Amino acid sequence: MKVKITIEYCTLCQWTPRAVWMQQELLYTFNEQIEEIALRPTNGGVFKISVDDQLVWDRKEDGFPEPKAVKQKIRNKIDPERSLGHSDK
Amino acid sequence: MKVKITIEYCTLCQWTPRAVWMQQELLYTFNEQIEEIALRPTNGGVFKISVDDQLVWDRKEDGFPEPKAVKQKIRNKIDPERSLGHSDK
Repeated sequence: MKVKITIEYCTLCQWTPRAVWMQQELLYTFNEQIEEIALRPTNGGVFKISVDDQLVWDRKEDGFPEPKAVKQKIRNKIDPERSLGHSDK
Repeated sequence: MKVKITIEYCTLCQWTPRAVWMQQELLYTFNEQIEEIALRPTNGGVFKISVDDQLVWDRKEDGFPEPKAVKQKIRNKIDPERSLGHSDK
């Protein structure tokens, strides 16, 4: 089962590099499990990550995510048995 | 009218960095006109760019695209009157 991941982020806050970085982290970790990973430029201080349109991270709730925290949330959702290896466990 | 751009690329050929580079070029040039820009990892030597599901570039036909060439094709499609500035005219 491949998933679609979406990163919605505020361009007025200059968060494009941060969104691209997170995208690459997720691409390398979940490469085989990703159908599509999309960036959605927006505004209003948004930085949200969704999997198949279900929100897994919202900056306004939990602050800026470290890749490890996001990877664990996505792993728990799409492949709970999988170990993320020594750095992202 | 905002558009969805898709970059489908072969991961076995290690083209993730190239796809992310093209994505950023298009994001910075068409920022206000992009609803979403998605990466779709695949295999088989594919490197294709589509706008609203219409193919604008296929590596197998035209080789690897320079950003300038892709930007001109996208501009001609979504905003024919727009100048792309001195480097991408």
